Amino acid sequence: MERSIKVLRIGQRYVRDDRTLTHLCLVSRAFGAETIYLEDAEKDVTATLEEVNRTWGGDFKAVLGVPWRKTILEAKKEGRSVVHLTMYGLPIQEVTPKLRGLDKILVVVGGPKVPGKVYHEADYNIAVTSQPHSEVAALAIALHEIQSGEELKRTFQKSKLRILPTARGKRVVEN
Amino acid sequence: MERSIKVLRIGQRYVRDDRTLTHLCLVSRAFGAETIYLEDAEKDVTATLEEVNRTWGGDFKAVLGVPWRKTILEAKKEGRSVVHLTMYGLPIQEVTPKLRGLDKILVVVGGPKVPGKVYHEADYNIAVTSQPHSEVAALAIALHEIQSGEELKRTFQKSKLRILPTARGKRVVEN
Repeated sequence: MERSIKVLRIGQRYVRDDRTLTHLCLVSRAFGAETIYLEDAEKDVTATLEEVNRTWGGDFKAVLGVPWRKTILEAKKEGRSVVHLTMYGLPIQEVTPKLRGLDKILVVVGGPKVPGKVYHEADYNIAVTSQPHSEVAALAIALHEIQSGEELKRTFQKSKLRILPTARGKRVVEN
Repeated sequence: MERSIKVLRIGQRYVRDDRTLTHLCLVSRAFGAETIYLEDAEKDVTATLEEVNRTWGGDFKAVLGVPWRKTILEAKKEGRSVVHLTMYGLPIQEVTPKLRGLDKILVVVGGPKVPGKVYHEADYNIAVTSQPHSEVAALAIALHEIQSGEELKRTFQKSKLRILPTARGKRVVEN
């Protein structure tokens, strides 16, 4: 199945938490999402992503400054299912078969400040364990489960560098 | 199979990067590791983990200040296989069947400053994609794959709070 996955980040924990934000962007890209929507981010996040695309390929996009309601509304208009990651949701392992059947998805990555309305706008509220850990880990596991691990085999077009996997050491080629 | 998994963090990217460190600890705990070894960390990381154990249960431990060589040496003495996560390693999906057969594991989470020697000390150098993303995500996927997703069903003993998974909203009970 051809799948289209986009990611929305809501409810930043700190005013400046660019490292978590950068990790959310890079995980979205590496695990096969097309786009991440960030309500509020420093411009340097975009610059980092452009550099990663240039070096490692692909055309992953970060969209800044769109209010979350609008992103969810437009996703629904596009026929996307809204999958909200929250430690209070249903265990992902129970919902995985349904998620794998969806071809257009908006994954919403929350945080402590997520408005209650998001729980109601979501088609699925799912938990990657009901323990406190990391939005970055939850996003990676969700993208991995939705795509049945197929995302690990993904290649990126037009990269400057490419890693040749090896049992010991580092092998990198220039394209 | 009864498995014992410990985690070692080597090569901190920044002098102070406590948020990534805290996420690595919480992911290790939530995904079923017993212990994380941190060469160098602020004491507040330990305090955060103690609070998480008190509230959410279990007895996950952080061990501070042991040099990485010693941790790897002792792990080997205990019969642990050393699994080093690096974007230069072999694709995890190709090594997963072997990893699932190991009953004692030390997962080593590297970073850009990992000494070359670690690649040679490791029994397995494995990559969670060969793309740049996040140590936190790589650790979560590795723990998830090694344990075949069984870690998601784990419960924690002696917790003060417990979440009742729900399709909408938040349900938490006090034990």
